[in-house]
Amino acid sequence: MNDRQVGVAILGLGTIGSAVARAIREQGDLIAERYGLRLVVQAVLERSRDRAARADLPPETIATDLATILSDDGVDVVVEVLGGEQPAADFMLRCLRAGKHVVTANKEALAKHFGELTAAAQEAERALLFEASVGGGIPLLVSYRQILAANRITRVRGIVNGTTNFILSQMAEQGTAYDTALAEAQRLGYAEPDPTADVEGYDAAYKLAILASLMLGRHVRPDEVDRTGITGVTAEEVAAARERGGAIKLIASAERDGDAVRLQVAPTFVPGDNLLAHVSANFNAIELTGDRVGPVVLSGQGAGPLPTASAILSDVVEAARVGAAANVVLGA
Amino acid sequence: MNDRQVGVAILGLGTIGSAVARAIREQGDLIAERYGLRLVVQAVLERSRDRAARADLPPETIATDLATILSDDGVDVVVEVLGGEQPAADFMLRCLRAGKHVVTANKEALAKHFGELTAAAQEAERALLFEASVGGGIPLLVSYRQILAANRITRVRGIVNGTTNFILSQMAEQGTAYDTALAEAQRLGYAEPDPTADVEGYDAAYKLAILASLMLGRHVRPDEVDRTGITGVTAEEVAAARERGGAIKLIASAERDGDAVRLQVAPTFVPGDNLLAHVSANFNAIELTGDRVGPVVLSGQGAGPLPTASAILSDVVEAARVGAAANVVLGA
Repeated sequence: MNDRQVGVAILGLGTIGSAVARAIREQGDLIAERYGLRLVVQAVLERSRDRAARADLPPETIATDLATILSDDGVDVVVEVLGGEQPAADFMLRCLRAGKHVVTANKEALAKHFGELTAAAQEAERALLFEASVGGGIPLLVSYRQILAANRITRVRGIVNGTTNFILSQMAEQGTAYDTALAEAQRLGYAEPDPTADVEGYDAAYKLAILASLMLGRHVRPDEVDRTGITGVTAEEVAAARERGGAIKLIASAERDGDAVRLQVAPTFVPGDNLLAHVSANFNAIELTGDRVGPVVLSGQGAGPLPTASAILSDVVEAARVGAAANVVLGA
Repeated sequence: MNDRQVGVAILGLGTIGSAVARAIREQGDLIAERYGLRLVVQAVLERSRDRAARADLPPETIATDLATILSDDGVDVVVEVLGGEQPAADFMLRCLRAGKHVVTANKEALAKHFGELTAAAQEAERALLFEASVGGGIPLLVSYRQILAANRITRVRGIVNGTTNFILSQMAEQGTAYDTALAEAQRLGYAEPDPTADVEGYDAAYKLAILASLMLGRHVRPDEVDRTGITGVTAEEVAAARERGGAIKLIASAERDGDAVRLQVAPTFVPGDNLLAHVSANFNAIELTGDRVGPVVLSGQGAGPLPTASAILSDVVEAARVGAAANVVLGA
């Protein structure tokens, strides 16, 4: 069988970008065999020569400006893993308008520019896939798409930040205070030196905004989310929850209330008969409730280079196989 | 926008078939709006006049032999919900060969004829989708497909039979014996008057055979599964498991062991730190483990007319949207 060549451009060779390049190399033969698609890293946007050198890619693939990639007809799919709002959002818009499919792991750029980005993808009839942006390797958006076809989604809630779940799980299992658990998370690399984005719930609010945008069929902005972090959670509250057979979790939730929707990120008591109470360590879990299917829970590793690269690679394959038909059609 | 008309034929108007007809009616406008597809129940195969009359469908759609449906160019997708091995398997083969996409909820026919059926679909370049056959409304196969694109799947295990999970959960929560819990399940309609297929693990073995076939890329037959039911599980064993913080569950598992695979359905102790221990009532949950993504757990209602119709309807939409590209490409 003659494999169809699929040119991939990777924007940013940080931890995730490098893991994607490696996954394409390691999984390439299997993907060719299964799908008849030969993925090729056609270009990489990376200004750091050190990073570019470490990635073990042919020097001619390294670009230092986006224009080179936009005008390269050999690039079919662009993987955006720069992180942060800009220039990532602007780059994605330009790629879509240049006729490239876009795969991203960037929750911040997506949460803040969901409306423009999905409109640009629709206009250009290209795929805009973002499985890795929420719930890491969990097949959340394909599940969302599947459930949306036959249901009205009435509620989405879950644990979408692994760092805070690790901290709360440590507090519960070790009986430690917040500060001690945070220090342990930092020591293990689960929390950043400046943990604000995680512990104050900003990261969870970005992810919730994306999930709510899909559910409601309009751009839900992160600042519409009523957000409380976990810094005020005490060892006593955590112990009391455990005593009752449940757990305190940082729950992100979007719930319909008539025509309105309540959007919240907050430490919440989850009773023991709900699976979310038993999601420990740095795992994530999301519960989608549809009017026919009832509640569906999906759990797995929410971050890390391997699970994230797994989700990105699947999106690249889907974009190459079916193009814009892989897009999640919005709810309402 | 001009909606594209998609003709659906339903084989069998039992509980599930009627729920599918109803779901197409109720969800039709939403599907037209979201996907530009107008689903129409073009034909129904049902020999019982009573059932046909109750379904509230135009009399001219009721067929009493398959040939009418095979030769009807207006039928694009056939939904097979007859149940049982034959004539269901034969009908599906004939539909695929006649160029129809096939959507089925029939685990027995699929488990026993997986090889022929997938080969026929590939030959005819048609979709053969069976989301409803394992895990009811849980978006299991779309998740499987997504994970397979970027991973080698090393293990699949889970709770795939809701009846036995209800019985074991009752025994754990009420401290009752097996017979009492079975009687309660029968009273509530979760267990059949003759519960053999569920309690002896046949149903779980069919579903495991399907999951293992996808994982291994060859037809795994149900009789390759080492099968033990739950009739020998005592109240004492269930109480002891609970005492240890875990639970006894009927676990179906397919695990790679070098080049071989171990296939088992058996009552198994699940420790409390595994989500499967906390899946109660008649819910199902499946854990897929990929070499990149790690363990992913999916849980939800494994049976019932609404969740099953939800999965079938999603499959019909996918078949109509992307055809054979919706097929799960087999692992290896």
